[in-house]
Amino acid sequence: MNEFWSRRTCVILTGASKGIGQCLAVEIGKLLVPESTIVLMARDTNGLEKTKEMVNKENSDILVEYYSVDFYNSNATMFEKIVEPIDSTKYELFLLIHNAGSVGNLDHLAADMNDPDEWNKYMLLNLYSVTCLTSVFLSKFNSDTAERCIVNITSLLGIEPFKSVGYYCVGKASREMFFRVLALENPTLNILSYSPGPVLTDMYTNISLNSKDEVVREQFTSGQQKQYIVKVEDTCQKLVNILAMRSYKTGGRVDYYDK
Amino acid sequence: MNEFWSRRTCVILTGASKGIGQCLAVEIGKLLVPESTIVLMARDTNGLEKTKEMVNKENSDILVEYYSVDFYNSNATMFEKIVEPIDSTKYELFLLIHNAGSVGNLDHLAADMNDPDEWNKYMLLNLYSVTCLTSVFLSKFNSDTAERCIVNITSLLGIEPFKSVGYYCVGKASREMFFRVLALENPTLNILSYSPGPVLTDMYTNISLNSKDEVVREQFTSGQQKQYIVKVEDTCQKLVNILAMRSYKTGGRVDYYDK
Repeated sequence: MNEFWSRRTCVILTGASKGIGQCLAVEIGKLLVPESTIVLMARDTNGLEKTKEMVNKENSDILVEYYSVDFYNSNATMFEKIVEPIDSTKYELFLLIHNAGSVGNLDHLAADMNDPDEWNKYMLLNLYSVTCLTSVFLSKFNSDTAERCIVNITSLLGIEPFKSVGYYCVGKASREMFFRVLALENPTLNILSYSPGPVLTDMYTNISLNSKDEVVREQFTSGQQKQYIVKVEDTCQKLVNILAMRSYKTGGRVDYYDK
Repeated sequence: MNEFWSRRTCVILTGASKGIGQCLAVEIGKLLVPESTIVLMARDTNGLEKTKEMVNKENSDILVEYYSVDFYNSNATMFEKIVEPIDSTKYELFLLIHNAGSVGNLDHLAADMNDPDEWNKYMLLNLYSVTCLTSVFLSKFNSDTAERCIVNITSLLGIEPFKSVGYYCVGKASREMFFRVLALENPTLNILSYSPGPVLTDMYTNISLNSKDEVVREQFTSGQQKQYIVKVEDTCQKLVNILAMRSYKTGGRVDYYDK
């Protein structure tokens, strides 16, 4: 087994009730050595329970815990309570994966994104909760010997604009920049922004049905697009391998389709 | 005189009470043809009054108006009231320049940026008010014949992370992405993100005195850095020329130091 995944690991994973997050939990769970822990967060308790069952079915030697969290209303105190019971002396690797996210109000094209409250709602989930949990993670797990790794699930749309999903583009761009600054300020951290490629998640379906741009709707459902669709297992496997290979510069980004 | 600046123009300029904004108002004012209008916005009324005097001293043939605006508490209704009296049939060019901005709380390194309220405060000024004013501008000035141009004053730090100014980096990155999406969705708009280079503004002085990173403080005040400092008149002149030459792709960015 690879050196990266052969250590007693504490994983914290958001957006773990479905889609990429659920699959990531399973793929990572398969690799974890005994006495490792996965802490799952999302809003949907049923989904979290299902993810826990899926992980433990593959690997019963690890502890899986889950917490229902409303990231629209999260703050440092809330995250501190979640990590408080974790005995940080037990682990050799702390891995935080920010997967939770939303596409934003699809009724608004950029010219209509004029409501500070709508903006704040979007950024609470997609940026502020991310920086908040990161801050708590770094305070709590502050050992000189254990490695600290943070994965920011991002998108091609964090670096390339795309019609009709302005909130999403801005949210992903802002998250990537936050982690680039964090990496620069903290050279001992291991930080990766990973873009999983186009996966057929609920978010993908939502855009294909509800985008205000007809061309985008057609593109998302076109036969041509199908060749680019990535299987959720494949992209999770790829991320797991990228972490194992350490084939990136901290603070940098890797896309599923990068060579 | 150049074609771009030879039209009856209505300019809306934020952050116009000092620094780059004040100088931009003067440099643009020099070029504007009679019956043009400049609408200045900022919080500081005295500064706005001074800018108005400076502009009219150079060119008494144009109308200069100003409004004290608190961008931390702005919304669409507030901006609608400001543009409401403007007779949009009079102009051939509508130019909106988003120059207002702040560096953010310098007490927080990225690992400490964990307060949603602090984040919201920052983004209200640096992103939400910008999108809000843009939206009002596009609704109000919606002629088939007049050109609409939007300039987003950005920074190298919108594309390159920099220690100790995480809010600023994230704010500028998010603004640039917003305008890239807006440009993609609205091909008839003329949109430029302009990075003025390191100018000795109050913001520059603030970072050089108060950055939490000692190396940054030293760098900002070093003799070596002095050679890169840009004179405020030079960068404003450069922006005015770039607009005149149309030497950019809409939605793109130009830095003062670009060849």
